[in-house]
Amino acid sequence: MSSDAQHLVLTLSCPDRPGIVHAVSGALARRGGNITESSQFGDAETGLFFMRVTVMTRVPRTELEADLAELAETYGMRWSLDEVDRPMRTLIMVSKEGHCLSDLLFRATSQGLPIEALAVVGNHETLRPVAEFYGVPFHHIPVTAETKAESEAALLELVDRLGIELVVLARYMQILSPALCERLHGGVINIHHSFLPSFKGAKPYHQAHERGVKLIGATAHYVTPDLDEGPIIEQDVTRASHADSAPALQRKGQDVERRVLAQAVTWHAEHRVLLNGQRTVVFS
Amino acid sequence: MSSDAQHLVLTLSCPDRPGIVHAVSGALARRGGNITESSQFGDAETGLFFMRVTVMTRVPRTELEADLAELAETYGMRWSLDEVDRPMRTLIMVSKEGHCLSDLLFRATSQGLPIEALAVVGNHETLRPVAEFYGVPFHHIPVTAETKAESEAALLELVDRLGIELVVLARYMQILSPALCERLHGGVINIHHSFLPSFKGAKPYHQAHERGVKLIGATAHYVTPDLDEGPIIEQDVTRASHADSAPALQRKGQDVERRVLAQAVTWHAEHRVLLNGQRTVVFS
Amino acid sequence: MSSDAQHLVLTLSCPDRPGIVHAVSGALARRGGNITESSQFGDAETGLFFMRVTVMTRVPRTELEADLAELAETYGMRWSLDEVDRPMRTLIMVSKEGHCLSDLLFRATSQGLPIEALAVVGNHETLRPVAEFYGVPFHHIPVTAETKAESEAALLELVDRLGIELVVLARYMQILSPALCERLHGGVINIHHSFLPSFKGAKPYHQAHERGVKLIGATAHYVTPDLDEGPIIEQDVTRASHADSAPALQRKGQDVERRVLAQAVTWHAEHRVLLNGQRTVVFS
Amino acid sequence: MSSDAQHLVLTLSCPDRPGIVHAVSGALARRGGNITESSQFGDAETGLFFMRVTVMTRVPRTELEADLAELAETYGMRWSLDEVDRPMRTLIMVSKEGHCLSDLLFRATSQGLPIEALAVVGNHETLRPVAEFYGVPFHHIPVTAETKAESEAALLELVDRLGIELVVLARYMQILSPALCERLHGGVINIHHSFLPSFKGAKPYHQAHERGVKLIGATAHYVTPDLDEGPIIEQDVTRASHADSAPALQRKGQDVERRVLAQAVTWHAEHRVLLNGQRTVVFS
Repeated sequence: MSSDAQHLVLTLSCPDRPGIVHAVSGALARRGGNITESSQFGDAETGLFFMRVTVMTRVPRTELEADLAELAETYGMRWSLDEVDRPMRTLIMVSKEGHCLSDLLFRATSQGLPIEALAVVGNHETLRPVAEFYGVPFHHIPVTAETKAESEAALLELVDRLGIELVVLARYMQILSPALCERLHGGVINIHHSFLPSFKGAKPYHQAHERGVKLIGATAHYVTPDLDEGPIIEQDVTRASHADSAPALQRKGQDVERRVLAQAVTWHAEHRVLLNGQRTVVFS
Repeated sequence: MSSDAQHLVLTLSCPDRPGIVHAVSGALARRGGNITESSQFGDAETGLFFMRVTVMTRVPRTELEADLAELAETYGMRWSLDEVDRPMRTLIMVSKEGHCLSDLLFRATSQGLPIEALAVVGNHETLRPVAEFYGVPFHHIPVTAETKAESEAALLELVDRLGIELVVLARYMQILSPALCERLHGGVINIHHSFLPSFKGAKPYHQAHERGVKLIGATAHYVTPDLDEGPIIEQDVTRASHADSAPALQRKGQDVERRVLAQAVTWHAEHRVLLNGQRTVVFS
Repeated sequence: MSSDAQHLVLTLSCPDRPGIVHAVSGALARRGGNITESSQFGDAETGLFFMRVTVMTRVPRTELEADLAELAETYGMRWSLDEVDRPMRTLIMVSKEGHCLSDLLFRATSQGLPIEALAVVGNHETLRPVAEFYGVPFHHIPVTAETKAESEAALLELVDRLGIELVVLARYMQILSPALCERLHGGVINIHHSFLPSFKGAKPYHQAHERGVKLIGATAHYVTPDLDEGPIIEQDVTRASHADSAPALQRKGQDVERRVLAQAVTWHAEHRVLLNGQRTVVFS
Repeated sequence: MSSDAQHLVLTLSCPDRPGIVHAVSGALARRGGNITESSQFGDAETGLFFMRVTVMTRVPRTELEADLAELAETYGMRWSLDEVDRPMRTLIMVSKEGHCLSDLLFRATSQGLPIEALAVVGNHETLRPVAEFYGVPFHHIPVTAETKAESEAALLELVDRLGIELVVLARYMQILSPALCERLHGGVINIHHSFLPSFKGAKPYHQAHERGVKLIGATAHYVTPDLDEGPIIEQDVTRASHADSAPALQRKGQDVERRVLAQAVTWHAEHRVLLNGQRTVVFS
């Protein structure tokens, strides 16, 4: 009945009440599990409790899952169990700008980013060579107002066929339909530029330049039907000066974008990000 | 006719055209001046040229000023000449929060911030002890809707009587009238919190908390009749997490606010900030 | 037998083995405690386990302590239990530079830093006015080679009489004797400048200037008999440039020093720092 | 005699004395040049003066060069004149780690980094595919103790034949001979990890982990016969925590390394870095 040691990561959220940590750690301890890392957070405002725990165990995973399912019933938990460091099955969507795609594929290949890139989808052909250099199949799915529905159907077909767990919008310049956002809820990460103050509308770097901002930022967030308004995973900034033209600001922005997106994808793939309504809990 | 060596700082702006640097450096060289530091910036978009130069000279300052006045005529320059490190005559306005006031007075006293604080004006009595500890006269000028005009008159009387060059709004929670903003144009620095995305309205830290932001920022800017929209001098951020309550965000925000305000006041007092329409040129 | 709700913080460390979290959470759950925050860390290299947990409970604290003492026996735990936000009884030591002292006292008074400053000890009289402005008794204990032993005895007498839990060396320029370091082990925090690369010997800012460093940093650490080599709690840096003179570097360094020291003291006072041999675990 | 407008960048250094800026701006003005950007720095300690000026002119470059040569004679100047944005002819040296190489080639191709990568030289074959993906010839020049002299001869032959202006050591794990360092003085940029405090010897990330550092940094510098001790161009850091294993620190370190190296190469290629003995002046 014994099996090799496995390193598992459990995440869960539920209404907060006394005894949860004890119940969870008990379920793990009864199965001979040794907790190697654990983080909790109780949100006093929403009354929700969040937990991420990694455990080393020799018990078959199915037995642990049975126990957890029972516990979930009692406490009203949403939960997931996965192997630590298992690469997440990922699809990356792009348009013409390659800085985020190149960075993600390089990190996945050489720096231990725990994703397995199974497909790159572009609404332009521009970035096919980058995908192919890294040995990832490139799918050209153009999008026009008329073809949006069938483009999204083609995308969903890919997602289903490849068993995709995570979709990364790596400077994908099309808006996903509300229906698609709902369908992939919590599984799509987007990156966009951010400023203080923020700017709406076209040519944001030109607006930022007009306004003379001293910081250029980026925000990575989950995609929801509210465009650019989904739960924030990570943000960062870099400095700008009066000598930076709008294109120079844009180059600086690209640097922050790829760094912030890579960080968000890493945390997501390591099961460190939990949804808390319009916010996230990040056990970084 | 000779005099001791003086270290002077000249700043100027004018429409850009060939020969400005040569003309300015010539005027300085003819008077035996040795340039110790110099920065220029030509804004291709506005067609304006900006310059800051420090010069060591033994010539009486009035002679240099005569030369510069002539040059200014020719080139349509706005200019100023001052002694390097002369403390700028400053008035600080406060309400109840003391983090920025304490910081400015400590830096002025002990860390070489080149301002001379001649008065602290509060619309509450709260911070009188802080001002008095540092030996700065505190003036209580309450403000209500009915008394706003006479309050501002009292303030202006102080500004004139004390020869104030710089007014710092160190978390002063009242809005200056458009007339006062115009009257003190380019001489009033304000600090306010900033977020990505930005939030309008009351309780911004609560909004930021609601939205789950991962960065808390602050912006120091010149005050114009457009509230919180004047030319930006400096911005910075600090990190936040899901575990930060709204009050915790506010404490972090206060840390950034005082740091950013001190930086902006330092650069202004060192004549490193020049106005370029709605933007600034900062020769940091 | 019931009592009002208390918010307690428990920290512990012990050899890692399965079941610790379960045992601890069980002890808390049996007493009706609700865990509000919890962090663990198992160090695979040292084989030690670290935990910090905050709990809301109505049970008398003595009962909880009895349970924990029993648990500690079983698991070989070092542990402490305290009230959340109880200000830690603190003594601050200074020489002539006031930037760290001013900052700590301002934060303790106005920004919720959870320390109660019961004494400021200076080997010079310079900073007496700062201490007294904040209502903290100032003790002048000069130190010379001949009087070092009796100076340290006077300090220890103060520490004992006032029930001091934390000693902060806020730019205190004397070296504590090895015996004193041992006596106060884990209860003394120091701040010093840090550079990349690091510089030994006198006038470090002059050396840093000579070397043309682009970053100026600071390190806060626990004091051990190894001078400047104790377990690191926090580090940070700020940017420098070729235009910064040695005094300018020093001013920038002071800004980082006070920020880093305040952060380290905050984490310590909130029981977020646990010793792990020559390192720390910081549950920030 | 007229020609099209050219945008030129002039850098110079010389002993400081009155009149230099005037003389230089005069030489440019007489040729109808319009200064678009200009920075100066006078180092009070070394008595040296540094200047970088960009100028728009229609005069043939040779005429300007004749004027400047004359001026250089008078003032004892070292100077260079180049076209703004002309890609610098660059050779990149690597061993097995590809993070810096990938980053530089991506930036050169897609993000306006003004270098033209003419060769990648590796002492291992590992990174050939990366170079070839970007269309840059890869040269395998192995190095052993016995063959070091001829390896360096082969490298120099490449440098001469290709007219290389800049050599970038992008995690090249071999030490250049003192003779080669002298030969390429001021034209070789290296990147290495940096810590506070710094660590000598092998496995620096393991040492950093042992010591529990909270920051991981990188330094880009010019190569001199003093290994890792040449003039610093740029430095930056990223945060680490107790939960970071030595490999995790290394990954974070790689992120900083590539960012810092890219920044240093950009500034060098834009003629923004001037040597000042063991230090640099960076007109960023």
